[in-house]
Amino acid sequence: MTKETYLELREKTLDYFSRAHIALTSAEEDAIEVADFGLDDVMRTGLESIVYINTDRCCAKEMVLLPHQTCPEHLHPPVGEDYPGKEETFRCRMGTVYLYVEGEATEDRCAAPPAGDEAYYTVFHEVKLEPGEQYTLYPGTKHWFQAGSEGAVVSEFSTHCYDEYDIFTDTRINRIPTIE
Amino acid sequence: MTKETYLELREKTLDYFSRAHIALTSAEEDAIEVADFGLDDVMRTGLESIVYINTDRCCAKEMVLLPHQTCPEHLHPPVGEDYPGKEETFRCRMGTVYLYVEGEATEDRCAAPPAGDEAYYTVFHEVKLEPGEQYTLYPGTKHWFQAGSEGAVVSEFSTHCYDEYDIFTDTRINRIPTIE
Ligand SMILES: [Zn+2]
Ligand SMILES: [Zn+2]
Repeated sequence: MTKETYLELREKTLDYFSRAHIALTSAEEDAIEVADFGLDDVMRTGLESIVYINTDRCCAKEMVLLPHQTCPEHLHPPVGEDYPGKEETFRCRMGTVYLYVEGEATEDRCAAPPAGDEAYYTVFHEVKLEPGEQYTLYPGTKHWFQAGSEGAVVSEFSTHCYDEYDIFTDTRINRIPTIE
Repeated sequence: MTKETYLELREKTLDYFSRAHIALTSAEEDAIEVADFGLDDVMRTGLESIVYINTDRCCAKEMVLLPHQTCPEHLHPPVGEDYPGKEETFRCRMGTVYLYVEGEATEDRCAAPPAGDEAYYTVFHEVKLEPGEQYTLYPGTKHWFQAGSEGAVVSEFSTHCYDEYDIFTDTRINRIPTIE
């Protein structure tokens, strides 16, 4: 991702947080993360977030998805002997988010994988989250999510977040962003 | 607490959440907790909250404090062999909250314990939290907090919450509310 793209998406993210009435410190505004997952197509496959806290035991983040932007399919594996994997609760704050999890595929789904990337999406049980609605994912469960046409702001409450160990179905993915 | 008091404080709590643009489901609206800590003086010593999630590993809540309302001094002890005690991060969303923790007593403090209850407050290091600001408390640390004159909305991100094991400095306190 270029620095220019990063700055443009950071501005959009701050606008979402402002419209959701979510206050950030200026240090947090400067620390907004824009992930393109190494696919270099961030408006389609990407995620914007700010990590509030990430201790050994707890993590909380606020995330933004642009209209129809997708966080690609992944799961959170055990890490080492003592960490059974990340548990996460997604709570929608603004907009609509379509979350796809393991289980019976929903017919007539509201969202679809990014065109051309269908091979990397394998779970299709749909959970629609509108403001105030939430869903909890336990470790080892594949999931992906996409915003509706107005984008979305989503809180995540979880155990410790080790992004670098997440397992993506799309083996082209590189979770840790590089900004040129 | 009488049912009438509960319903009145629940309405006030919903008004704070509405002004903070925090969406709840109708089931959550019905499940608002009003704690008077058994002191029967809830406008002075009390706390309103909704628990979003409380699994074995993670907990997230949204709390409301009315103007100058105080959550009394307590700490979170270890529970059993495997739980080192609750870790919690308070993040102010609206209004101002004054948090008091162990450490050097702050001079010219902005808040004071409820009049007549001074004997039950022993830590006076002040942390002022305004919207977007947060503070993390590790287990075994005494703390109490009070809203400023406009009340406050505060998110809590924590490990599992066992309210019933919290240790209050004020031994008159009964954490689990009874509604007559
Ligand atoms: Zn995940
Ligand atoms: Zn506490």
